[in-house]
Amino acid sequence: MSVHSKLYEGKAKILYTTDDPEVLLADFKDDATAFNAQKRGSIHGKGEINCSISSHLFKQLEAYGIKTHFIDSPAPNQMRVKSVKILPLEVVVRNIAAGSLCQQTGLPLGKVLQQPLVEFYYKNDQLGDPLLTRDRLLLLELATAEQVDVITNLALEVNKFLSGFWQQCGITLVDFKLEFGLDSQQQILLADEISPDTCRLWNTAEADPDRRVMDKDRFRRDLGNVEDAYQEVLQRVLQVVESKN
Amino acid sequence: MSVHSKLYEGKAKILYTTDDPEVLLADFKDDATAFNAQKRGSIHGKGEINCSISSHLFKQLEAYGIKTHFIDSPAPNQMRVKSVKILPLEVVVRNIAAGSLCQQTGLPLGKVLQQPLVEFYYKNDQLGDPLLTRDRLLLLELATAEQVDVITNLALEVNKFLSGFWQQCGITLVDFKLEFGLDSQQQILLADEISPDTCRLWNTAEADPDRRVMDKDRFRRDLGNVEDAYQEVLQRVLQVVESKN
Repeated sequence: MSVHSKLYEGKAKILYTTDDPEVLLADFKDDATAFNAQKRGSIHGKGEINCSISSHLFKQLEAYGIKTHFIDSPAPNQMRVKSVKILPLEVVVRNIAAGSLCQQTGLPLGKVLQQPLVEFYYKNDQLGDPLLTRDRLLLLELATAEQVDVITNLALEVNKFLSGFWQQCGITLVDFKLEFGLDSQQQILLADEISPDTCRLWNTAEADPDRRVMDKDRFRRDLGNVEDAYQEVLQRVLQVVESKN
Repeated sequence: MSVHSKLYEGKAKILYTTDDPEVLLADFKDDATAFNAQKRGSIHGKGEINCSISSHLFKQLEAYGIKTHFIDSPAPNQMRVKSVKILPLEVVVRNIAAGSLCQQTGLPLGKVLQQPLVEFYYKNDQLGDPLLTRDRLLLLELATAEQVDVITNLALEVNKFLSGFWQQCGITLVDFKLEFGLDSQQQILLADEISPDTCRLWNTAEADPDRRVMDKDRFRRDLGNVEDAYQEVLQRVLQVVESKN
């Protein structure tokens, strides 16, 4: 596979075209940003860690029956993916109240939700990725009503699988962000990545609200030991994956 | 009717108890606030103007079949209303994109929506009256799913009537905010007020985006001639009401 030109550079990944027009190469970076890129930094080793965690989770999800853009991982920080047209939506699934949900509703941090909450945000840096109602999403023609329903069900299925998987890792899945794309057949595929950058992960055995954090909130909130937390998450993922083989 | 103690003082009205526990007296103030009360001022004569416009519109809506809290107007700036438990929701109906819808979605000001958009905001000053998805509204238990459906339909009915009424006034109804309350029988009544404080009203004959504004945006955006605009709205309402009698 020969790599061609840079197609797109995001905050955490660079996408390159390849000699196959249906295949892209994603290069995972150590760069970290938060608060709509107002806070910038770097997490040493993050590119390889997130690429590895994502690769394992995409493989597990494929085996569970969820179609993803994942093909393989030709190098520790690289993933070959199917070329898709990314829908401009950040699909957030919440099991426990945290982050902007608490800020915007006054719900206390850590409140367990009776059922998972699936939310759509407009993936638009200029507008600050605002929360969308279903009507606004449809008004902006960001997806069709049918696509919204399909994605909602997929997000709930992904949550069902991931909650169980992280539980086996001794990790509580608080919430996470998914992105979806359309392939050349207009089929909806799970895309982007699944990692401590995109999931809120709490060490289940730890009650302390700062010490339990194993995800990008360590970077956002300057809690320290960011690399250690990412590394620990990867080790636990590898253990569970190996125990399954 | 003897007036008892002050029950509640809001930004634009004071509510007093009366000798009838089912009846309150609303006193409309000249005070004006905007941007979650960060901007404060006064619009001379506003209390009487808004009380008069609201009274006429509530009477018209009652005749149209919408149940409201309105009883009568014993003085130019006073309205007797049925005592209701106000739901902590700001129900916004939009016919044309303006205000926070444009800021949050990037839709251009003045874009005519293909169908009216009914939105719910959490009436909570501390949180800045955030937009609610249906799921968040239900999660916060601000209303039941059935109440949301009833209110959505009522809001659309009110919009249907008001759009026509304002059109007769030569005024384009851009958007407006409603509040609803529950009476002692748990019946949903339209409450609060309907006035240039709560509606975006554009002079239909005027194309200039600043000169056409006949509502509180003149105060919010320091466009001048605020009192004149409110007075003009009242005169047009009175003309249409008189032509109907």
